[in-house]
Formats: sequence, C-alpha cells, structure tokens
Amino acid sequence: MQDVQSAPADVTISIDRVGVKNLRYPLIVRNKNNGVQNTVAQVDLYVDLPANTKGTHMSRFVELLHDWSGVLDYYSFKHLLSEVQERLDARRSHLTFRFPFFLEQCAPVSESRGLMNYECAFTGELEAGKPRMCLDVQVPIMTVCPCSLAICEQGAHSQRTLVSIRAGFTGMLWLEDLIRIAQDSASTPVHALLKREDEKRVTEQAFANPAFVEDVVRNVADRLNAKRQIQWFRTEVESFESIHNHNAYACIEASKE
Amino acid sequence: MQDVQSAPADVTISIDRVGVKNLRYPLIVRNKNNGVQNTVAQVDLYVDLPANTKGTHMSRFVELLHDWSGVLDYYSFKHLLSEVQERLDARRSHLTFRFPFFLEQCAPVSESRGLMNYECAFTGELEAGKPRMCLDVQVPIMTVCPCSLAICEQGAHSQRTLVSIRAGFTGMLWLEDLIRIAQDSASTPVHALLKREDEKRVTEQAFANPAFVEDVVRNVADRLNAKRQIQWFRTEVESFESIHNHNAYACIEASKE
Amino acid sequence: MQDVQSAPADVTISIDRVGVKNLRYPLIVRNKNNGVQNTVAQVDLYVDLPANTKGTHMSRFVELLHDWSGVLDYYSFKHLLSEVQERLDARRSHLTFRFPFFLEQCAPVSESRGLMNYECAFTGELEAGKPRMCLDVQVPIMTVCPCSLAICEQGAHSQRTLVSIRAGFTGMLWLEDLIRIAQDSASTPVHALLKREDEKRVTEQAFANPAFVEDVVRNVADRLNAKRQIQWFRTEVESFESIHNHNAYACIEASKE
Amino acid sequence: MQDVQSAPADVTISIDRVGVKNLRYPLIVRNKNNGVQNTVAQVDLYVDLPANTKGTHMSRFVELLHDWSGVLDYYSFKHLLSEVQERLDARRSHLTFRFPFFLEQCAPVSESRGLMNYECAFTGELEAGKPRMCLDVQVPIMTVCPCSLAICEQGAHSQRTLVSIRAGFTGMLWLEDLIRIAQDSASTPVHALLKREDEKRVTEQAFANPAFVEDVVRNVADRLNAKRQIQWFRTEVESFESIHNHNAYACIEASKE
Repeated sequence: MQDVQSAPADVTISIDRVGVKNLRYPLIVRNKNNGVQNTVAQVDLYVDLPANTKGTHMSRFVELLHDWSGVLDYYSFKHLLSEVQERLDARRSHLTFRFPFFLEQCAPVSESRGLMNYECAFTGELEAGKPRMCLDVQVPIMTVCPCSLAICEQGAHSQRTLVSIRAGFTGMLWLEDLIRIAQDSASTPVHALLKREDEKRVTEQAFANPAFVEDVVRNVADRLNAKRQIQWFRTEVESFESIHNHNAYACIEASKE
Repeated sequence: MQDVQSAPADVTISIDRVGVKNLRYPLIVRNKNNGVQNTVAQVDLYVDLPANTKGTHMSRFVELLHDWSGVLDYYSFKHLLSEVQERLDARRSHLTFRFPFFLEQCAPVSESRGLMNYECAFTGELEAGKPRMCLDVQVPIMTVCPCSLAICEQGAHSQRTLVSIRAGFTGMLWLEDLIRIAQDSASTPVHALLKREDEKRVTEQAFANPAFVEDVVRNVADRLNAKRQIQWFRTEVESFESIHNHNAYACIEASKE
Repeated sequence: MQDVQSAPADVTISIDRVGVKNLRYPLIVRNKNNGVQNTVAQVDLYVDLPANTKGTHMSRFVELLHDWSGVLDYYSFKHLLSEVQERLDARRSHLTFRFPFFLEQCAPVSESRGLMNYECAFTGELEAGKPRMCLDVQVPIMTVCPCSLAICEQGAHSQRTLVSIRAGFTGMLWLEDLIRIAQDSASTPVHALLKREDEKRVTEQAFANPAFVEDVVRNVADRLNAKRQIQWFRTEVESFESIHNHNAYACIEASKE
Repeated sequence: MQDVQSAPADVTISIDRVGVKNLRYPLIVRNKNNGVQNTVAQVDLYVDLPANTKGTHMSRFVELLHDWSGVLDYYSFKHLLSEVQERLDARRSHLTFRFPFFLEQCAPVSESRGLMNYECAFTGELEAGKPRMCLDVQVPIMTVCPCSLAICEQGAHSQRTLVSIRAGFTGMLWLEDLIRIAQDSASTPVHALLKREDEKRVTEQAFANPAFVEDVVRNVADRLNAKRQIQWFRTEVESFESIHNHNAYACIEASKE
C-alpha cells in the first residue's frame, strides 16, 4: 500500500510539533513517599518534522503509549521521550501527561481523613540528548480579603482561589512540594473533610492571615525562588471573588537562567 | 438530485427531536423596561420525525433562523416555533436560545454603575397549536455560612454561589423577575463594581444574612411558588465553598399543575 | 458547639436533593469479564431534607465516601445508597459517579491493540427500600452521510459522532453492552489504533454503511427496546458535521413501564 | 477608610500582571468593510505592580471598561491601553478581549446565505509608549485524509478540523484576513448553510484537495510568512479524526524579528 506520509512535502517548511492530542489512558504515578497512585491521564505526544517530509506516522505514537507500562516518574518519562524520538525518527520529542493527583489530608482538630485532588501535568521535551522537564499544578486555596477585613465592622469576604504553578526544573522535583508551597502561601488551604471543630479552626486561621491575590502570588514566587531545582517558573493566582462575578488575578514569571 | 432524506426509514421508530444543535447567532433580546439589548446566542432547532420518514431537512432550520430577524420576546419566539413546524412539515417544534443577558447595576453607596451578566435560556415547544414555554437563568450570589458564623470567634467563610432557575410559564415572565428572586434569596447579590464604601456595606449586609444552600433554595422556591405565571419550576443552588474543593448543592422541584 | 444545621428551618419547604457535588475520587470499577479497572470519578451525594430541618450534615457524605472502599458494581453501589440514607437519617438517597471507562480494542486487520475510553455514569436513588438505577454512556462513532454519498461523483463527508445513552434498568446491565449497542448502530466504530491496512478496512466499511443521525438513533433505540433489563431510556446522537460548524442532532426517549 | 492596597508589600517582588479576569461585556467590533458588528466579550484587564506596593485598585479597571464606549478597533484599543496604564499609575498595561466574530457566507452554488462564527481575541500590551498587538482566530475547516484517499477502494475519512492562528503585528491586520488564510489552506472551508447542490460541490472540492494536518499547518504558515504586517505567529491545526477518538495535531511557530 502507498505510504503517502513518506512522500515529499508540497510546502517545505519544518513543523515544530506534530502528533496525537487528547489520548486518554489510565496512569500510575509515583508519589514522593515511594508509594504509587492510580489516576487517568490526557496525553499529547509530538515530534518535530523536517521540511521535506509530508507526514508523520500517527499510529506509532499510540503503539508506544500502549506498550509503555511504566509508573510515571522522572526516569520513565525520560525513557518514553527517547523512545518516541527514536521510533518516529525525529530530532525532538515532546510529551504531556495531564492528570488529577490525589493526596490524603488530615483535618486540623478532629484528624478526620479525606482525599484532596489537584490538576497536574508533566511535560517534557528531548532534543540532542538534553531533556527539558516541566511540572504544572493547580492548587485550590482560601483567601480572606485584607481590605474588607480592615474596613468592615463585622466579617470580611472570603473565597476559593486557584493557585497555578508551572515550573521548569532539573534533578528531582515533586508535585507534593509544589502543592505545599501553594498551601503555605494562602490564608488557609482548602480541605476535603472538616468536622465542626475543624471548620472553626480553619476559618479563624484564614481570618488571621488575610491575603490579596497579590500577597499570595508573591508568597508563592518567593518560595519558588528559594527552590534550587527550579530553573524558571510562572505562577498565577485567580480568586473567585465572592462579592463579584469576575475574578481577581495576579501573575509572576521568573527565569533563573 | 436524489432526495435521500425523503426515502422510507429502515427502522420505523418515530424520532422525538431531530435538527441542528449549537448554531451561534447574534441576537437582540427585549428587556422588561421596553428597551432591547444585543447579545450572542447558541441555538438548537428541532422537530419530531414520523416513523416512516428517513431524514429531516437540516438546511431549512438554518434558513429559517437566518431569515428570522426579530427581537427575541414571547411573541417572536412563538412565531419562529410555528414557522419551524410548518416549514419542516412537523407535528412538533422545539427551540432553545442560550445567551448571556446583561443588566446595569448600581453600587449601594457610591452609586457607581457596572454591568452584570447572567447566563439565560429561552426554550419553547409547539404541538397542536399549544406552546409550552420555559425560561432558564443562572444568577451568581454571595453566601455567608451560618454555622461558621455561629461557632467562630471572628469571621465566617463566604463564597460565590450559583442559583439556577428553570421555570415553565404561561403569559409573560421576565428574566429580570427571576434574577431579582435569586438575588433577594441570597446573603447578598454579587456586584460588577464596588468602591471601598460599597464593599463595606455589601460585606456587612452579607454577614447580617447568613444562608446555607438549603436556606437559599427554600427562599427561591417560596418566591417562585408565589409567582402566578409559573406552572412548574426547578431551582438548584451550588455553593463553591471557600473552605473546600467541592461544592454544596440543594435542589427543589415543584409543579403547580 | 452550636449545631445550626439541626435548628428549625425558616421557610418550611422540603428539599428534594441536598448534599455535596463534584467530589473527585479514585475509583475501581468491575468489568463484565470479572476483572476490574482503575479510574477516577466525579461524585455527587445527595439526600432529601424534611421541611422543618434547617440543614443537612455535609461532612458525613465525605466520610461515607472516604470509608467506602469497594469496587463499583450494582451491589456495592446499592450498599452505599443505603448507608447514605441511614447515616444522614433521610427518606431518600441519590448518588452519581461519573468516570471514564476503558476497553481494550483490537484493530480489524493488523489486530494491533489500543485502549478506547468512554465517558460513563452510574446513578442511583433509594427510597422506601426500592432502588432505581440508571447507566449513562457516551460512545464516539463514525458516520458517513448517505445524502452526500448518493449525490457526489466522488467521496462523501464523514465525521466523528457522539452517541449518548441513558438507561434505567433492573437486574444486571453492563456498560460494555451499551457501548456495543452504540457501535453496532454506527457507520463504523472509531478506533484507538489503526495501521494502514486497518484504516483501509474501517473506511471502506463506513462507506458501505452510510447513516444519518436519524438512522443511528433509530438503530440504537431498536436495540435498547430489545434489551429486557432496560425499563426506560433516552438516546441522543450528535454529529460534528465535517462540512458545517454546527451539529446534527437526534433524540429518542422511551419508557416500557 | 483605610487604603490597605497602598500599604507597603510584605514580600517585595514586582508583579508582572495583576487585575480583573473574566469580565463579560457587550462589544461592538469594527469590520474590515467599514461596518460594525455586535458581539459579547470576555475581558481581562491587567497592569504590572511595583515590588513595594501591596495591591492594585481592582474597581478602577471595571470603571474604565464601563466608561469605554468605543467600537473595538486598533485605535480604540490602544486608547484603552493607555487609559488603564494612566489610571492605575502603572508602567505596563495588558488587555485581552475574547469574542465570537461573525461573517456572512454565501453557499457556492445556490448562493444561500448564512452566518459563520469564529472565536477571536484581541490582545495588547503597552509599555514605554510602545504597543504590542496580537490577534487570535479559531477557524473550523474540513480535511480529507490523503492516506485514506490513496489506499481505499471507495471514499476516505474526512472530519472537522480547527485552525488556530495567533499573530503579533504592526500596522493594520484584520480578522477577516486571518480567517481567509485558514480557509484557503483547507481541503475546503466549512459552511453555515448548504443546499443539496452546494453539499455536492463542497464535498467534491474537499476530495479534490486532501490534506493532512501537516499540509494545512504548512499552508497557513506559508501565507502568514508572506503577510508583511505579521512579526511573529503560532499556528496550530487540530483534526477531530472521524476514525479515532483522539485528535491529530500540528504546530508551527515563527518570528520574523
């Protein structure tokens, strides 16, 4: 049968990334504490394509993913990057796994346990033997408005706020560490399960630590700056203001290279 | 050219609704105060299909919508329903327009003005000359947690909460009335624009009216029960809890028929 | 500490459903072939609330879900329904688990293997000892347009089409059976992994079985009618027309009760 | 009342972007042919914030947008950028308007008319008197698979495909021009309204121009390269493969600076 993909290209421009997008696959992810967890990923698998080749071979990406039976960590991900590069005969491979990540959480007073979930992604690019890795996490937190707290006779508006961190790194960097950085930068973390005595503690803690999105984004940036494995980052904080129908937003980007 | 649609069906089961979904069109909507507003709609246009006809004529739906140049209100909508029924030679027509609806809002102290937006829908069905009409609105509000307020030394968690109302009606029913009902059932409405003195007033008002989702949904149901044009309704309240990553939810359905 | 939830309600209207929405939890689902699979669920847990009680106890829902360590099947789901009913002291409990479900699939010629994913849901309601169960599946398929095929010199437009089935049932009903019904009603199923010889076979098979959304929805309804465990169903077919930016849609609802 | 925002920051890191996100507002956009159209926008308004200031004044963004009553074009947008910069006392302002954009379209044989919609965005940044402008468009097209066409006895799979273009530019660049570039790079454009004779023409035209995502992305890049106003671009093509449940994807980025 004709191999149309291997024919010469009509327009000879090299393609930065080509492949399959939005494959869904079950995934096992390694935790920081040496355990593993089951989750479900959305996967993008790309390579570059030279100017003179008409098309890539899409089915090979799916074969490689289906045969890759590893636990997701730094090493297995790097291995998949080089397999994709090799099998597709490419100079550069580029992969993304997006998945919910779960951590058990303990309520502050009752010590009741529940599961928190965080949207995460692991992205990598391999070129000339050099991998470039990047982690993404989205961490819901609570913020109490400092202005509202200062001017109101009673109360202050609070809301759910989403902290997003994207960090390029070398060596080992754990999702658990980034999640902790976001939570430590909040008025208080949000919780999966709170009994009445916990709700009291969490609310009072939040009101003792009022924070604008500006405060949170600076707190996060400060902690990311101190983390040696991180080479560059972007952190965004979006607060679903309880007194408005629009959101407050702040963003800091930095490169240490 | 062959008219495949008019051929006999292979499997002779009548179809409840068939047509085009997710057309996007600019739309002019009539306001309660006799003015009009420009918005953009997502439109679904359906008819029934008898058991023995293979297919409907999809392009006619688009023609009818393109030629319909009216301002959306009860009468123009009923007219479009009967045009669709007639042009498609159907027993029953079924239309939905979904659109953001805007209302100017005045801050409580500074009287600053801003625009609030509400996701709305207008749905109608026409059969045997009898129209059945239904309005949908989604109204963001603020809720302060009564439990948190009662047990905390200082503060209480608050959050943005979404009130959804779906109401079947006869006669005239205005989106403005349903939006008002949702806002009156809240700890406080949310606002487009608040200066500092407004933020103080709104927050204090919210803390003076703490409400669970259970309170809000009952307040809304009570007001909908009192509205004579409404024949049946479903109201849902979903609170984006600021201390959790999941939502609190309550729902009441009622039929007065 | 004060138990505000147990106070009398201000507005004494009973609430149809109240609880927690959008909890995300890892889930193990039982397959038809006796195996199990790991996935991730979005979970809603509700009960009714009598007219004179102010609020439900939200944290108990999360506790019950966290302690429920079963494999999802008919029996474990019924058990969770009755635990929720009992622990919340309710007349009626109502649960939904939404999750991607995976099936290995074999290409028709090369016999290459890949994983297909389907969005599914398991919903149940328990009242007066009587459970009412419902399954949802969304199955992507391919459709070739019969009209286009009849009138064109060469080719015909084809597209990805989504078949949705919601079925109320008694006894045992498997997701695998509903998925098979949707695929058998298509021009051809879609595939996870196709080598060139498979692509030829699948495309030619699709062009030998052209089908409107009207044909697909009737094929599905016909097969659901023949399935004895199914008491009522709604099936929707939405085709992402490749020649348009809107979708073709058809829907059949039936009750055998 | 206390002005908490003007207090010194606790962590003295400058913030790249801070402001309001996801405001929805009605919008009038200028067309290339000198007319205007009504649509609805999602608006983000940001400024930078120096390291030593605690917070920005969020309500001022909303005031400026509410008072800005212009028609969206290059000049009015630049004006709003400088107003935001000035009123917030900032070094840099950054605005995005996202909106559906409508163009009337004429069927190729019947000349029937319908409206096509395209998701668009206008983004601008102003710093040191120098504006940097960027347009985004998403254009649905149709692709016929060249491989499938070469190897099948009859037919070939086709599907809806989305072309995304983001282009940084100087001088005047029109959405209409970018939409045209995407459509000219396809197997065929998609249409709002096709009578049977049009469907025949469009399908046959598509089958005479088979194109992989690789072909489309190169065609688009080639045309963007030739457009002098464009300084840099990224174009992505995502094909909702009718034989698969995942998508084919290709991307080219280029800078001419």
